[in-house]
Amino acid sequence: MTDATTGLQLRSLIKASGELEVSLATVDIPEPGADEVVVRVEATPINPSDLGLLFGAADMTTAKASGSPQAPVITAKVPDAAMKAMAGRLDQAMPVGNEGAGTVVKAGSSAAAQALLGKTVAMIGGAMYAQFRLIRAADCLPLPAGTTAAEGASCFVNPLTALGMVETMRREGHKALVHTAAASNLGQMLNRICLKDGIDLVNIVRSEAQAKLLRDIGANYVVDSTSPDFMADLTKALEATGATIAFDAIGGGRLAGQILTCMEAAISKSAKEYSRYGSNVMKQVYIYGGLDTRPTEIVRNFGMIWAVGGWLLFPFLQKIGAADAAKLRARVAAEIKTTFASNYTQVVSLQQALTLDAIAVYNKRATGEKFLIDPSR
Amino acid sequence: MTDATTGLQLRSLIKASGELEVSLATVDIPEPGADEVVVRVEATPINPSDLGLLFGAADMTTAKASGSPQAPVITAKVPDAAMKAMAGRLDQAMPVGNEGAGTVVKAGSSAAAQALLGKTVAMIGGAMYAQFRLIRAADCLPLPAGTTAAEGASCFVNPLTALGMVETMRREGHKALVHTAAASNLGQMLNRICLKDGIDLVNIVRSEAQAKLLRDIGANYVVDSTSPDFMADLTKALEATGATIAFDAIGGGRLAGQILTCMEAAISKSAKEYSRYGSNVMKQVYIYGGLDTRPTEIVRNFGMIWAVGGWLLFPFLQKIGAADAAKLRARVAAEIKTTFASNYTQVVSLQQALTLDAIAVYNKRATGEKFLIDPSR
Repeated sequence: MTDATTGLQLRSLIKASGELEVSLATVDIPEPGADEVVVRVEATPINPSDLGLLFGAADMTTAKASGSPQAPVITAKVPDAAMKAMAGRLDQAMPVGNEGAGTVVKAGSSAAAQALLGKTVAMIGGAMYAQFRLIRAADCLPLPAGTTAAEGASCFVNPLTALGMVETMRREGHKALVHTAAASNLGQMLNRICLKDGIDLVNIVRSEAQAKLLRDIGANYVVDSTSPDFMADLTKALEATGATIAFDAIGGGRLAGQILTCMEAAISKSAKEYSRYGSNVMKQVYIYGGLDTRPTEIVRNFGMIWAVGGWLLFPFLQKIGAADAAKLRARVAAEIKTTFASNYTQVVSLQQALTLDAIAVYNKRATGEKFLIDPSR
Repeated sequence: MTDATTGLQLRSLIKASGELEVSLATVDIPEPGADEVVVRVEATPINPSDLGLLFGAADMTTAKASGSPQAPVITAKVPDAAMKAMAGRLDQAMPVGNEGAGTVVKAGSSAAAQALLGKTVAMIGGAMYAQFRLIRAADCLPLPAGTTAAEGASCFVNPLTALGMVETMRREGHKALVHTAAASNLGQMLNRICLKDGIDLVNIVRSEAQAKLLRDIGANYVVDSTSPDFMADLTKALEATGATIAFDAIGGGRLAGQILTCMEAAISKSAKEYSRYGSNVMKQVYIYGGLDTRPTEIVRNFGMIWAVGGWLLFPFLQKIGAADAAKLRARVAAEIKTTFASNYTQVVSLQQALTLDAIAVYNKRATGEKFLIDPSR
């Protein structure tokens, strides 16, 4: 056990001068209130959703390292054109890290807090790239006995996102779904959920290697967007599954629109008569990521009954309400070593995460590369 | 009165060989059934929504005229790349014309049909570019006494679309709206509705002349998308009105995305703290037309709570149900000479509509140019 009165915390600062500065600050850890605990963070993933806050709109090809190995500092230039979008966070050193897991090392006086002392818990709420995290006991998800912090580090973002996609599909009246960047950790998880729940899933990947990876773990419909037959293959899979909703992590380029085009082509194969406005079937693409930061380019050749929009986990959880959200969380905890298991390619310390070599790898957002930070190292 | 046993009907045919042929066919007019009437069509507008069926995907720069002045024939080439989208209508001579008005010249035996005999009625349902139209009595909207066919010709598409936009705004929880191509007949109508109902409307136009036209009829918020200050002006108008829903007739290019960008900018001016995912306020753009046929290009710099989708009158009317749709229609009939009045720049016969000179004008879809066909000429 530790005193846990101070600890390192990663901070991301964008200065009004147009410079990004990421560094490790030593911060005081307050004594927990009655309903609070202090968790020693032992595992916290670098999700694509963390990178936006971590590096903002900085051009990371201009990144420079300074400071010392124990106190590294990364700086980079933010392009002038991108500074407008950063207005809301200028000159504030922001903590980073959506989720993580670790050991409860201090607990407030309440029974709920005391019950967690010594336990391994998963957490969500930001500021996880830190040695210690003060958090409300109610916001901790105790992990089943025998679960390590590394196993429980990604309990929220990916598992709830994958479950949220399936829930959204059901609630909006679709019977099968499409997922892009489908070989990702999240995509593999979604594939496991769909296999388990008997839902047809069309997986769109960007290489034959990724296609093989998904087929090897049992995926029934895998389509490679780099294949010359992509549009025909996708249409065939959509016809077979009846999927009319897609979740797209790519965002930029023509993919979202191509999915709508192929959905309409699949639907109209069974159409009885010509309709100049296209089919009456709702076709939905939700963009939940931005792996491709270029503009979304939509060639509107799929009639008038369609929608493309943003999808985000937290508004979704708010919409379904606390009781239904709790059910999803309980399923994650119960299946954390199977359906919701994550794979990491590297485990690094806070200091190692702030090296140019590491950044070059995890900031690529490449499928298959996933970093876990262990701030207790 | 006329025998009305045969009449001319405009037909649009796309041949499998890739040729469009538009001509006037002489068709038999069946005797009306008990609940039906025959209407002599005296006024039927050329709406942008008619042009899609009229000329399909043909390249009208290749249009040629043949036949005779009494029986004109227009032909044009359909580009190979566009033939796929025409598959559903190949080799079928399709009647055209969404809506129109005229005099009931024959009526079936039922009381409802007989009551219409000699009356001026408005109609919707296609095949209006014809001398006579057989139609169910229940589908006729009797015009108030003293209303001409020309005044009642555009009772459905534009008036119900404009009312549908306001209804959609209300039902989806927005308090003000944005409209593009706002100097159009439809746009002027929407402006009159909003002024009358006390709703803030941001009108986006594409020239200073159109801006002046709208200001002259009392529009409070007019923004010119060709101005160098467009984005700033639009943001200011969105801040003043709180509009978070837009109806876009343009479709192609960057406008839909720019509206979302400016909505988010207007919203975040009152934001208290930085949110990396943008505001929590839903921002909606409905694309209901395609004046610009290029791809829709969306620069995603407005957070994650947004949607762009198709909007179409008939699915909207189905969604709100028959009773609410009837209320909208009753309002149109009551205000057909004021709020819902249409202006036409030319009135032509069926034969005149099929001349290259006329096509060159009405197929431009230019704001301010609107043709009315009088098939009884």
